[in-house]
Amino acid sequence: MFTDKEQLERCASDETEDLVYVPELVLQPETVNAVSSIMKYCNEQHIPVTPRGAGTGLSGGALPLLGGVVLDMKRFNKILKVDIRNFQVITEPGVITQELQERVKEEGLFYPPDPASKGSCFIGGNVSENSGGPKAVKYGVVKDYVLNIEMVLPDGEVIWTGANVLKNATGYNLTQLVVGSEGTLGIITKIVLRLIPAVKHDLLLLVPFRNAVQACEAVNKILLAGYTPSGLEFMERDALEWSIRYVKAGGISLPGDIAAHLLIEVDGNDMEQLYKDAEAISQIVQQFDIGEILFADSYEQKQKLWALRRKVGEAVKSNSIYKEEDTVVPRAELPKLLEIIKRIGKEYGFQSVCYGHAGDGNLHVNIVKGNMSDEDWNIKLPKGIRVLFTEVIRLGGTISGEHGIGLVQKNYMDIAFNATQINIMKEIKKVFDPKGILNPGKLFPGKIIY
Amino acid sequence: MFTDKEQLERCASDETEDLVYVPELVLQPETVNAVSSIMKYCNEQHIPVTPRGAGTGLSGGALPLLGGVVLDMKRFNKILKVDIRNFQVITEPGVITQELQERVKEEGLFYPPDPASKGSCFIGGNVSENSGGPKAVKYGVVKDYVLNIEMVLPDGEVIWTGANVLKNATGYNLTQLVVGSEGTLGIITKIVLRLIPAVKHDLLLLVPFRNAVQACEAVNKILLAGYTPSGLEFMERDALEWSIRYVKAGGISLPGDIAAHLLIEVDGNDMEQLYKDAEAISQIVQQFDIGEILFADSYEQKQKLWALRRKVGEAVKSNSIYKEEDTVVPRAELPKLLEIIKRIGKEYGFQSVCYGHAGDGNLHVNIVKGNMSDEDWNIKLPKGIRVLFTEVIRLGGTISGEHGIGLVQKNYMDIAFNATQINIMKEIKKVFDPKGILNPGKLFPGKIIY
Repeated sequence: MFTDKEQLERCASDETEDLVYVPELVLQPETVNAVSSIMKYCNEQHIPVTPRGAGTGLSGGALPLLGGVVLDMKRFNKILKVDIRNFQVITEPGVITQELQERVKEEGLFYPPDPASKGSCFIGGNVSENSGGPKAVKYGVVKDYVLNIEMVLPDGEVIWTGANVLKNATGYNLTQLVVGSEGTLGIITKIVLRLIPAVKHDLLLLVPFRNAVQACEAVNKILLAGYTPSGLEFMERDALEWSIRYVKAGGISLPGDIAAHLLIEVDGNDMEQLYKDAEAISQIVQQFDIGEILFADSYEQKQKLWALRRKVGEAVKSNSIYKEEDTVVPRAELPKLLEIIKRIGKEYGFQSVCYGHAGDGNLHVNIVKGNMSDEDWNIKLPKGIRVLFTEVIRLGGTISGEHGIGLVQKNYMDIAFNATQINIMKEIKKVFDPKGILNPGKLFPGKIIY
Repeated sequence: MFTDKEQLERCASDETEDLVYVPELVLQPETVNAVSSIMKYCNEQHIPVTPRGAGTGLSGGALPLLGGVVLDMKRFNKILKVDIRNFQVITEPGVITQELQERVKEEGLFYPPDPASKGSCFIGGNVSENSGGPKAVKYGVVKDYVLNIEMVLPDGEVIWTGANVLKNATGYNLTQLVVGSEGTLGIITKIVLRLIPAVKHDLLLLVPFRNAVQACEAVNKILLAGYTPSGLEFMERDALEWSIRYVKAGGISLPGDIAAHLLIEVDGNDMEQLYKDAEAISQIVQQFDIGEILFADSYEQKQKLWALRRKVGEAVKSNSIYKEEDTVVPRAELPKLLEIIKRIGKEYGFQSVCYGHAGDGNLHVNIVKGNMSDEDWNIKLPKGIRVLFTEVIRLGGTISGEHGIGLVQKNYMDIAFNATQINIMKEIKKVFDPKGILNPGKLFPGKIIY
């Protein structure tokens, strides 16, 4: 039990903008029984409980808006069983995603979803936010790998949500309801993930485009031609440029006429086939106005390019106060989305740096404050974001692809859902958490359910 | 509106055993508005409504247990849009699954999940039951393809459950809650499915084993070696023998010492690679005590073998009154499951024919009445099934992999879930359907919520 300033401050913020909400107490339970007792007590006493993973969230999901207890899950850090025979892993939620990936890789298995923060984020947070990452275009997102969850309900009861099977038609899918529920339904204490056989090889291409909209168009061309890269990432010029500066990377030239890049990874077990695929993809992108393709097949080169991609968020953050939107549209609407973002930016006076998982239609829009006035930032900008999200919905998309709603997007939920839909979600919340003590003030717009 | 005997009788049964429940009225709406009006009226008047697709269900989900209205969705039979640019299809629920597959194939796209009844079942029923089928081992089940659902709530309101995107972290996953909810939460009126690029080639192997448990063991060997077949089906000797007799298939020899078969399909775009994979798989199965492998690479041969597999259910049914269980376990536990089934069969005096999707650990157990007495069938057998399901849960599995709970498995739900879990599901049901008019008497054990 911690009430010292250092711990309270550590749990007062995550990676979301510059937000700070200080809890009254930080608890670090180590066992399911301890979590159960804490929940039971807090439920009886009507104390808000906000579960926290590694604090890498981008929507403020781990911030204790109403104070109360932060349930810091860092001591739930054991990989309980790698079940090689069944291609499954049973893990506690406080395991770092990359460590989980490396552990199962030792057994020839593969857990694909890896958010940019994979080196520090927890798998429990990934499950709570239904994270994606660059490999989703080929391998899907977190929800596609979660088979079963052990969770503690607010009244202290412990349940499993499903079974450790690949096919399940037994009752409502509580597992999928809990994935992406942002800590509002229960405290996740164990996760069963399905795995797939490890993939032996990959190749990486960095393709510079002179026109950013063409880069988005190329994405669909590649997929329509029957190629499914294991990564298909879009970066505006600024995104790559800022990242190069931030990580002080040498050896990557960025000619003045380049507007955007695609980072394209192909993977598989047959190296010869991969070279063929990379060649075919090169042919496809050459139909557009591109610069020289950088072809990476050494481990170091590939690591370097991926690091540049992964560090874009941090690089933008280090430059200016910012807001990060997590728009997602049906993939082919991506060029239209990019144009709309830039048009709205002009209209509402904000500069944006766009990048993200173009293969899934998931575009991160980093809006930098730069020299915007506080008034424009606080009053005019939210109106611009509202217009942007309305357009996203009109394109068949939605307001968060992989970061979750949490705190910072909740007041836009009415754009994505009408009152009936939101009411259904609120009623479901009540089924699990009738007193509203779990992560209050998140996900739902309007009056806080507590 | 139909009240004539013929229509009432048609909607009084499905493919589940010999069960008959006659509705008072059959309605065949053609528009969402019509469904909305019907629901509103029935909700006000507290009239039970049971949605019905093609009536191919195996758990009694479409049977109007309390009479009332059968909402026959056969006129919702339009594929509304094949969105080639986004690899998506928007369809009404009353489209036959195979027709949907063929339509999207014309555009070079692929919707993999195909239950044995694909030639007659409706996609809406597949979504309601979260169907699987033989390709799930490589491509997943229905839930892995549903992006968004339009549904009519009991009060007549029409909602969409999500968005037409590949990644979604916006609120609770209502889409996945509705998939597999067996018509108890709302009436599905539109479905958005993601598609993948069509696969060009496939090859099929029929491998006879002298020992059925070894056939189950071989399944895991193949997958652990890094091969993921697009079909990995297990058939006990009886299953294949009865099917051969039923479809009057010639040209398939079944030596006396063969106890079971694996039907193994590999698919891909490179024929040369497929022959290599088939060869490698042949090598793996040759470590077991097998007969001569039948290698099918002509269209006719492949169709013939698949038809034999697909007709097993009908063949068993044509032989005797039967019950079909739909057990699923973590894949590696399959050999153990098969032994347990046979042991319990001996103990409780029933004969079973087992077959199914071994690649997913999903084994259908067809229990044939043969010359069991009615008393044993009605009283002793359910006790045996209870013991079987208890063992299935102990192995980490569950009681239905792809057929759903419906009517015939609901009284076993307490084996899979404790009171807390079932209560959560019941409360979720109430959120959508407070009066309990939708498909009453299904899925939940005990007192009917109505």
